Amino acid sequence: MSSNQLTDSGQLRHFLTIEGLKQPLLTEIMDRAEQFSGITNRQVKKVPLLRGKTIFNLFFENSTRTRTTFELAAKRLSADVINLNINTSATSKGESLLDTLHNLEAMHSDMFVVRHSQSGAAEFIAQHVAPHVSVINAGDGCHAHPTQAMLDMFTIRRHKQHFPDLRVAIVGDILHSRVARSQIQALSTLGVGEIRVIGPKTILPADTQTLGVHVYHDMAAGLEGVDVVIMLRLQHERMQGALLPSAREYYDCFGLTDEKLKLAKPDAIVMHPGPINRGVEIASTVADGPQSVILEQVTHGIAIRMAVMSMTLGAQSEQQEVQA
Amino acid sequence: MSSNQLTDSGQLRHFLTIEGLKQPLLTEIMDRAEQFSGITNRQVKKVPLLRGKTIFNLFFENSTRTRTTFELAAKRLSADVINLNINTSATSKGESLLDTLHNLEAMHSDMFVVRHSQSGAAEFIAQHVAPHVSVINAGDGCHAHPTQAMLDMFTIRRHKQHFPDLRVAIVGDILHSRVARSQIQALSTLGVGEIRVIGPKTILPADTQTLGVHVYHDMAAGLEGVDVVIMLRLQHERMQGALLPSAREYYDCFGLTDEKLKLAKPDAIVMHPGPINRGVEIASTVADGPQSVILEQVTHGIAIRMAVMSMTLGAQSEQQEVQA
Amino acid sequence: MSSNQLTDSGQLRHFLTIEGLKQPLLTEIMDRAEQFSGITNRQVKKVPLLRGKTIFNLFFENSTRTRTTFELAAKRLSADVINLNINTSATSKGESLLDTLHNLEAMHSDMFVVRHSQSGAAEFIAQHVAPHVSVINAGDGCHAHPTQAMLDMFTIRRHKQHFPDLRVAIVGDILHSRVARSQIQALSTLGVGEIRVIGPKTILPADTQTLGVHVYHDMAAGLEGVDVVIMLRLQHERMQGALLPSAREYYDCFGLTDEKLKLAKPDAIVMHPGPINRGVEIASTVADGPQSVILEQVTHGIAIRMAVMSMTLGAQSEQQEVQA
Repeated sequence: MSSNQLTDSGQLRHFLTIEGLKQPLLTEIMDRAEQFSGITNRQVKKVPLLRGKTIFNLFFENSTRTRTTFELAAKRLSADVINLNINTSATSKGESLLDTLHNLEAMHSDMFVVRHSQSGAAEFIAQHVAPHVSVINAGDGCHAHPTQAMLDMFTIRRHKQHFPDLRVAIVGDILHSRVARSQIQALSTLGVGEIRVIGPKTILPADTQTLGVHVYHDMAAGLEGVDVVIMLRLQHERMQGALLPSAREYYDCFGLTDEKLKLAKPDAIVMHPGPINRGVEIASTVADGPQSVILEQVTHGIAIRMAVMSMTLGAQSEQQEVQA
Repeated sequence: MSSNQLTDSGQLRHFLTIEGLKQPLLTEIMDRAEQFSGITNRQVKKVPLLRGKTIFNLFFENSTRTRTTFELAAKRLSADVINLNINTSATSKGESLLDTLHNLEAMHSDMFVVRHSQSGAAEFIAQHVAPHVSVINAGDGCHAHPTQAMLDMFTIRRHKQHFPDLRVAIVGDILHSRVARSQIQALSTLGVGEIRVIGPKTILPADTQTLGVHVYHDMAAGLEGVDVVIMLRLQHERMQGALLPSAREYYDCFGLTDEKLKLAKPDAIVMHPGPINRGVEIASTVADGPQSVILEQVTHGIAIRMAVMSMTLGAQSEQQEVQA
Repeated sequence: MSSNQLTDSGQLRHFLTIEGLKQPLLTEIMDRAEQFSGITNRQVKKVPLLRGKTIFNLFFENSTRTRTTFELAAKRLSADVINLNINTSATSKGESLLDTLHNLEAMHSDMFVVRHSQSGAAEFIAQHVAPHVSVINAGDGCHAHPTQAMLDMFTIRRHKQHFPDLRVAIVGDILHSRVARSQIQALSTLGVGEIRVIGPKTILPADTQTLGVHVYHDMAAGLEGVDVVIMLRLQHERMQGALLPSAREYYDCFGLTDEKLKLAKPDAIVMHPGPINRGVEIASTVADGPQSVILEQVTHGIAIRMAVMSMTLGAQSEQQEVQA
């Protein structure tokens, strides 16, 4: 739980983790995204909401896809965006991370979108930034990926409306997945009826009980009667380790095929954070099939990021006015 | 010939190749570029025509120069531009090309500017994109480079007006040149009086007859009385192979010197797509001399790209209105 | 001294070096920056002054920090910015530097911001650019870094007002520092009472007499009674050479600690161009202490760059009007 992502009046000042956020706030994010969703369908996909704001994409870990969605979201809000690949910049001159950050703050930046391979990096940065900077966590180690979780919730709400009635299954490498952790927290906060996690024992976390989820090692049993199937991406580096059998064996047990999908409800939707490994965690016929909403997730990712960016910068300027 | 670069009403939906396009359309592109040409000379070099549009520069093959001209053209039309070097992005995570494209489409992009080392790549992508995306070919393998050809035609028209009266010579590695292929198609469609290609036998295509060009292996004979001399860039990798003699020997035979240029008409213009190899395919005195229009070509390249971008996106939104 | 950075009427056409510029012009730059300083504190940090202008960041030497400040300054003036890392672009295809520049000029660019490892590179480029392009030196070899010097002057003026009353000490590797050279010229032009340079003999220039500075090899003596302490960054590559003792030994002699700082005036300010090497040239307690204005320098860097960019482009368009 982050101690400092909310302002005193409970507004979103940073967006670091789903943990600790209340249901009305998650709903507000989705409602705001709903408004932006209309904009991105218009001929002119831009609003002047963040004109004159400076947003830094601080990517300590490379992710073109995620960076692009944040860059697009910022540009559609009319903000100025600077992409920094931190590995190749000042830190290579021996400057400390905090010195780099303080320098960027001093350039009157308004937001840092942070991607880092270490868990807790975004939280650490948020603890040290100046009052005029908001931090968005764009994925930190195995810890959290809150905008991904929110775009997933938004996608579910678009198709399924009422969360308490739903059974949701998450399939794959839960143990190492920041996406899964954030999804479970969001699903739980939104009051989803039943959350299931499905995977081999080696890549399920030991604390599944405390997470409030039901654990399945058999995919057929786990998919039975669910409304939503969320597949996780299998990291190639895991497959080379001892934690997992071969890709082929994994696919046989935990890959989502048309047959296995039939065990879920007939109107179940299939989700995946991308990029997908066809034939490893998901069959092409499923990924491209009528129940797949994978590309919708990408679309909604822009709207969710626009929502979170405008909310945090809004909360911040309100707070600065109060303090002024 | 591309089957799908025109809408049902004959407007430019993609811009993939000159092949198959009719003379009035090529003229329309040049007329439109003429309008934009005025804009880039103004104090404020921007028009709001594509405000809110999202253009991706998808460069599978590095070309800073070409990417920059497309980026500038897009920015001067007020579009948002995202540069993606595809080698270093999602495909390195094992995602297929089409999955990458569909993801970018799902971000509500409006245009892909594609550069690829394989012939047919832009056409392939155009066949698979969503209806709301236009594809511009920024060079694919040995196949086509249609915006380069059109900026060359525009440059010729600026100096020479009436195409049927002209004799045009293209000198160099025709066989491997996407530029030459597109130029020959454009010159031919615009009814140029005589098209000559000049080069050693090893790098002239076998099908020159069907291209409707006259072939010369002797440069002096080929340049005799021409109005326009188009030099091609000699690829360094060719010179190391068996197809060509040394750079020195090539220059002696096919390099454009002041003396050889005297064989052309006195008011002949000299063109080159750049970057030039001084002393390999062209003498510095010619490249920098009074008959050279090489830098004008660069300038016109922006206007031509603005024209093609605005025409394809215009055709697309008209079509969407019809279908809506 | 640059022969061509001023227009006939004495306005700033390029900004290449402090050398040769008169005091009223340096004051004008600071006054203009003062105006922009207000803008960067506003909610909307943008003015439309350079809307439609095209600015190229030509970085032949990597410097993310400096490039970012120029990029931000340009964007806050509403210009379009293209970042080019020249090592990886056309020059790798064998194109000469001047051909690359002339190509960029032909794209109707308005400004080149040049960073280069060779002294004189910006001057060389300015001598060869077309009349419609302004050149800003963003650091060339050991020669000059004029925007850094001006942001330092601006920072001093913010704290100390009247230059003739001041004693200023510059500490470190003066010999190899373009920052120090530009600072000394600016301090001298602004009539600073006393300029001191402090460092080991091996890294002090031989011509300190002609620079009009007082030389100290003993830091305690040099800091005595100064109003401003400017620390230079110690280049790691120097420490591996024979010119310097170990980092530890250097710190003992020339590192700025709280104790040594006490020798300066009680209200002395501490400056550093960044990035800082903590524990090498400066103690963390000093860098983060109440007398440090290091982060203010970063902030002022944006305003100074906005000032210089708008002044050079303003002078240029005036000149073009005169000539038209």
